[in-house]
Amino acid sequence: MNVNGKQYQSIWFDEALNSVNIIDQTCLPHKFETLILKTLEDTCHAIEAMQVRGAPLIGVAAAYGMYLALSENPEKVSPALERLLATRPTAVNLRWALERVEKALEEVSIERRSSVALATARELEREDMAICEKIGEHGATLLNEIWESKADKSAVLNVLTHCNAGALATVDWGTALSVIYKAAEKGIPVHVWVDETRPRNQGAALTCWELAQHGVSHTLIVDNAGGHLMQQGLVDCCVVGSDRTTITGDVCNKIGTYLKALAAHDNSIPFFVALPVSSIDFTLSDGVSEIPIEERSSEEVSHISGIAENGELLTVRMTVKDIAISNFAFDVTPARLISKIITEKGIFDAQESELLKLKT
Amino acid sequence: MNVNGKQYQSIWFDEALNSVNIIDQTCLPHKFETLILKTLEDTCHAIEAMQVRGAPLIGVAAAYGMYLALSENPEKVSPALERLLATRPTAVNLRWALERVEKALEEVSIERRSSVALATARELEREDMAICEKIGEHGATLLNEIWESKADKSAVLNVLTHCNAGALATVDWGTALSVIYKAAEKGIPVHVWVDETRPRNQGAALTCWELAQHGVSHTLIVDNAGGHLMQQGLVDCCVVGSDRTTITGDVCNKIGTYLKALAAHDNSIPFFVALPVSSIDFTLSDGVSEIPIEERSSEEVSHISGIAENGELLTVRMTVKDIAISNFAFDVTPARLISKIITEKGIFDAQESELLKLKT
Repeated sequence: MNVNGKQYQSIWFDEALNSVNIIDQTCLPHKFETLILKTLEDTCHAIEAMQVRGAPLIGVAAAYGMYLALSENPEKVSPALERLLATRPTAVNLRWALERVEKALEEVSIERRSSVALATARELEREDMAICEKIGEHGATLLNEIWESKADKSAVLNVLTHCNAGALATVDWGTALSVIYKAAEKGIPVHVWVDETRPRNQGAALTCWELAQHGVSHTLIVDNAGGHLMQQGLVDCCVVGSDRTTITGDVCNKIGTYLKALAAHDNSIPFFVALPVSSIDFTLSDGVSEIPIEERSSEEVSHISGIAENGELLTVRMTVKDIAISNFAFDVTPARLISKIITEKGIFDAQESELLKLKT
Repeated sequence: MNVNGKQYQSIWFDEALNSVNIIDQTCLPHKFETLILKTLEDTCHAIEAMQVRGAPLIGVAAAYGMYLALSENPEKVSPALERLLATRPTAVNLRWALERVEKALEEVSIERRSSVALATARELEREDMAICEKIGEHGATLLNEIWESKADKSAVLNVLTHCNAGALATVDWGTALSVIYKAAEKGIPVHVWVDETRPRNQGAALTCWELAQHGVSHTLIVDNAGGHLMQQGLVDCCVVGSDRTTITGDVCNKIGTYLKALAAHDNSIPFFVALPVSSIDFTLSDGVSEIPIEERSSEEVSHISGIAENGELLTVRMTVKDIAISNFAFDVTPARLISKIITEKGIFDAQESELLKLKT
């Protein structure tokens, strides 16, 4: 991804320094900072504190975490896998990536474990970039169809997105935003409505920042606004990502996605979900009852960071103290509300007969 | 309403001091402060800056504004009416209350204008309290029915509300919250899910504060969370207010109401709107195309106030500078998504044949 004119990834291995590097996403949009992960605990902290976040990215980060863990102690494969798996419960890529590493380590001598884990992590990193670029290419054909059918060619193509399913949620490109980047590359005049995405404001902080870096026109809105914009004909389609998708096409994604899907459905607006096949959980068939939904700290709701008038970055408490707060991080959008699922392997209807084709 | 054990109204006339007093709602929940409105411009500022807000309350405030204007200059009836009418475009009570004052002033001598305006404002104030209490009594019967039909009597009655349609949105009692207060008075163990209500956080700042003052159990959630809670069976009904309702039952209310109504409908959860008859606009039949939706400052989205670690109340900027922001303040919930409309004159279906009965 482009950062102030320089090419970056959300996570990368520096061969010269033999280090695992990340963009610290908790500093954005106010500061661009990178971090070196040195240990398993560094990696777990980065995932739990959401210095890295986004289903595909935490998968790759966890694989690097295995490399760091086995560099510390090559005996402790299982404890490291368990520690990493426990960092976040909802995204299935985490499990998927760790299973890839575990499998690669089968019948590998103790001495070679860390280097095999590293090779697997780097392979996952490269794969993720290729997958995301492919998702973008496939999805852009859908946006192009909508653009072609739009009567008013002096207008823009208005796409609404929720949270950040961008380059920052993956190694590069993103899922939902990859679709938008590829559509913009095709010359479609895309304008993105960016949901703020409370409580962590990944839309306001990360998606707006990414789109600005890539020169894609965008407007920030509060999460409450999308329904009104759709009613007023100001949204041509929605594109979001996914943290876990069932074989039946139910999509678990950032809390609030379901509300936007309802509004899109009510206004006959296409609702697309862009995801790597690795985020499909082929063992589940009912998203609402079966996908574990992470509950996070109440401070994510009560407190927020920003720049004070004197230029200082600080955190303020918006609520009174000792208020009861509930903070579920994800919700499930039933398959019936989803127009198409965009994967690296092509575009599918959100139904079992279609998604089964992706099972290998 | 109860404030630290003392009885208050959102607006009141102090006979001894001959002054119009308000609770300054922009200071809540961090500080409880009252203000004296001395001039027409004080009143317009209070409405525009949302020191007073909520459709019923701004109606009463505007009537007091006419008193203050005519005390300054009894000749300028029309300019004062126009100035007040322009403060906020969406709520119809503003127009309704001003028309009441205008009518009361017909054939009144110049000398008596300000005292007639005052008498009318005080009458509207008293009426509003009685209306809101009545709304609460009617609405509580609906909540009681749901409570009675709930199998698990060890549970609570979970009510979701959006924004603040409480005592602070009216002179006292509120509309949606009056229903909740009256249900709690009946002994129903109500628990309220309070939508934060971005961008101005009236849910987090005002509704939570009010409910705490009245000892009603509540939990703050982000606006994104309601759909998930409904899917999980954690919401028994929704109750919201309205800024303007068409004769056909389309309800204009705080931005994001429509999304909650969609989710309630999708999960077969009753969605109630509590409103005074004065907020029905009998001239309109299509809410989505006919109700003007106020657009407010982008700073409401980019900036927020809170308490810093050192205890200081200050404002921080959450986004980067110069970001494009759209900030519509209201949306329209189509009548088909509304289970019942609760008024001071009883409970009605959201349809023209029913609401026409309320036209006088």
